[in-house]
Amino acid sequence: MSFPIPGQAAGIDAGRLAATLEEYAAIGATPGGGVTRLALSDDDRAARDLLARHLREVGCDVLVDDLGNMRGVLQGAPGYASVHIASHLDTVVRGGRFDGALGVLAGLEILRTLHERDIRPGRTLELVNWTNEEGARFEPAMTGSGGATGAVAASWVQDRRDRDGHRLGDELARIGYLGEQRHRPPIGHACLELHIEQGPVLDDLDRPIGIVEGIVGITWLDVMIAGAAAHAGPTPMVSRRDALVAAAEVVQAVREIGTAGEPPVAGTVGRFEVQPGVVNVIPGAVRMSVDFRAPDEETLHAMVKTLRRTAQEIGARHSVDIDVQQFWTSLPVRFDPGVVERLEAACAAAGIEPVYLWSGAGHDARHTADVMPTGMLFVRSRGGVSHCEQEFSAMEDISIATTVLLHAALALASDGINDATEEDAT
Amino acid sequence: MSFPIPGQAAGIDAGRLAATLEEYAAIGATPGGGVTRLALSDDDRAARDLLARHLREVGCDVLVDDLGNMRGVLQGAPGYASVHIASHLDTVVRGGRFDGALGVLAGLEILRTLHERDIRPGRTLELVNWTNEEGARFEPAMTGSGGATGAVAASWVQDRRDRDGHRLGDELARIGYLGEQRHRPPIGHACLELHIEQGPVLDDLDRPIGIVEGIVGITWLDVMIAGAAAHAGPTPMVSRRDALVAAAEVVQAVREIGTAGEPPVAGTVGRFEVQPGVVNVIPGAVRMSVDFRAPDEETLHAMVKTLRRTAQEIGARHSVDIDVQQFWTSLPVRFDPGVVERLEAACAAAGIEPVYLWSGAGHDARHTADVMPTGMLFVRSRGGVSHCEQEFSAMEDISIATTVLLHAALALASDGINDATEEDAT
Repeated sequence: MSFPIPGQAAGIDAGRLAATLEEYAAIGATPGGGVTRLALSDDDRAARDLLARHLREVGCDVLVDDLGNMRGVLQGAPGYASVHIASHLDTVVRGGRFDGALGVLAGLEILRTLHERDIRPGRTLELVNWTNEEGARFEPAMTGSGGATGAVAASWVQDRRDRDGHRLGDELARIGYLGEQRHRPPIGHACLELHIEQGPVLDDLDRPIGIVEGIVGITWLDVMIAGAAAHAGPTPMVSRRDALVAAAEVVQAVREIGTAGEPPVAGTVGRFEVQPGVVNVIPGAVRMSVDFRAPDEETLHAMVKTLRRTAQEIGARHSVDIDVQQFWTSLPVRFDPGVVERLEAACAAAGIEPVYLWSGAGHDARHTADVMPTGMLFVRSRGGVSHCEQEFSAMEDISIATTVLLHAALALASDGINDATEEDAT
Repeated sequence: MSFPIPGQAAGIDAGRLAATLEEYAAIGATPGGGVTRLALSDDDRAARDLLARHLREVGCDVLVDDLGNMRGVLQGAPGYASVHIASHLDTVVRGGRFDGALGVLAGLEILRTLHERDIRPGRTLELVNWTNEEGARFEPAMTGSGGATGAVAASWVQDRRDRDGHRLGDELARIGYLGEQRHRPPIGHACLELHIEQGPVLDDLDRPIGIVEGIVGITWLDVMIAGAAAHAGPTPMVSRRDALVAAAEVVQAVREIGTAGEPPVAGTVGRFEVQPGVVNVIPGAVRMSVDFRAPDEETLHAMVKTLRRTAQEIGARHSVDIDVQQFWTSLPVRFDPGVVERLEAACAAAGIEPVYLWSGAGHDARHTADVMPTGMLFVRSRGGVSHCEQEFSAMEDISIATTVLLHAALALASDGINDATEEDAT
């Protein structure tokens, strides 16, 4: 057994990683080449089962906590806080094959590389698959990492329901992934997350990877519009209380608010439901989500305020009631300078000059950053698109990113125990 | 047995009719006091079964055709074309208890009145319950009357599918109402339809009933918008191809086109579906219906033309593809002057001065008007609202309308056989 220093880290097997990405992408594969693997669906279970098998094959213990978060534990030197590599296997509806899965499977490739070469890390390494990062089935997003790090209550997470009324905790039990609270990922020495950029910055700069400086603040709102359903024929245009016509103006207001700032400021209506939804009935009700993002809390707050004011104006103009509820917020965060330094060093070792960028998307790393030193690495996304079937990252870029991740993880894993290691090695 | 002349018609039993309206409103009743009784649902079957029993109780034969249209036949003098009283028992989602059901149940009340007093009409009377008038489950609307009168092919009607993929013909068989082609309602001497106004004209004028001059032209379009789904966070506002933002402008264009003319010109987006419909994903696709109405063909055509042009402009501005398909049209129609005269005479006999108005909604009478002399009577709708749970018509107005309908039906039923009647009666 040896505790290697970073420079000695063996190269990963890019072909094996590519095959593994294919293998997992087949679980929940869509006709359009993407993946629909909603949290706690049968496909999510299949992906989890496969990951558990793969983790055991490389000598890891597999543990599942009461939020369904699962991890493989590769034992290192006892008595030292562990180093985490974490991401998620769930996807949105008709999402891509890289978002989330890449971070988990790059971690698996690192564990396979270490196993194959009989390299033991200094500190214990943990590969974490967080439950329900996307929030596509159970809103909001990142409930697994949020519950485990104390950002939200675990019981609240377990009580989340999908649109069909299924409870998250019940669905965990149904697929066999309702584990124990004592198995929640511990507070580690550091946490690393590799993820696709999901934006165009690296592609525009023609660079394979980037070091993430921080994550934008995100807030989600529920906008409910109550008008009056009525027959589309005999109801004069002037006397209508059309919820959809008012909702269309809210959609445009959200776009205007999002466009008023520089990126990563953004505003999006993603979920949008019209009742009763019949061709010859004036819509009586619309419910929509609003997603606002900004790099600082003040801007985020101002965006919400503008939306509320505009919604009231629109409601008055169309004689409809508009209710705006802010139901989830993730404050902006700046990543740990020490972890960023390790990522810089690993880039240097791989001969890559790093690009620094902000994440416009939320990630589980947002929650881990609250409880332990955390950092993120981005891989270029072709065209900057994600959460869709066209999502693509090249294996060449993925290979570079995984190598950098391996170097950084081993460096962090050797923190504070290098002397002991050298003694052991003699 | 006697063939009465109109003035001799016995009064209807308003209390019994009110109780019967309650009885049918209980089938598919919604918590909000309305009715959801979609065509060929289990509730539709229950309502049909009840109607069949009620028709047999008053001495009618009950026949069902290959489109599920059902009718009770009260035999009159042989060799004469029959007089139809027709409407429908299906409703929209969370619709009211009067739209459609009133026309059928007023007809039932007339048959009960005749039965109770042993009055036989001159000509055969037929009470018709058309299948799928609303088009709420199987688009388009009025497929039962359209198929039976030859406006559309019966096989095409049977092949209509609901959103879950169920075929209309299969659903007819499932609920036991797939009858025989030879049982389609015959081309009658005349057809009468009593219906709630579904608009505010009578309520504004404070009048109980109105004689309908004609039905507006209606056209339905399917608008499909294809943008690009992408992650709501890292995708800059300027590089988005957001299908929902473009769709919001189409909704406003439809409203502007509808508002440009005087009533009954109208434009409505009723069905509106967003894909993938997830809070943190920019919508990649929107599909919506457009309902345009106008009293003349030229206006209707111009409205469609304006929508097509505007949709192209919106599509270009947002870099999305917008496809506009016109999939159903019902041309405007003016009702038969002879039938209108009988309704006027019946109003006079009831001491009611008639109001004349156009129908902004489509009705099965639109189709029967193509093959036989047809007329319609409207009952005041409180607030003009319909296709919603708040739909309401007062029993006082309903009672007047049913009495007028009875007089008009008996007058039409005695056409050309009054002499023979008198001979028989001696």
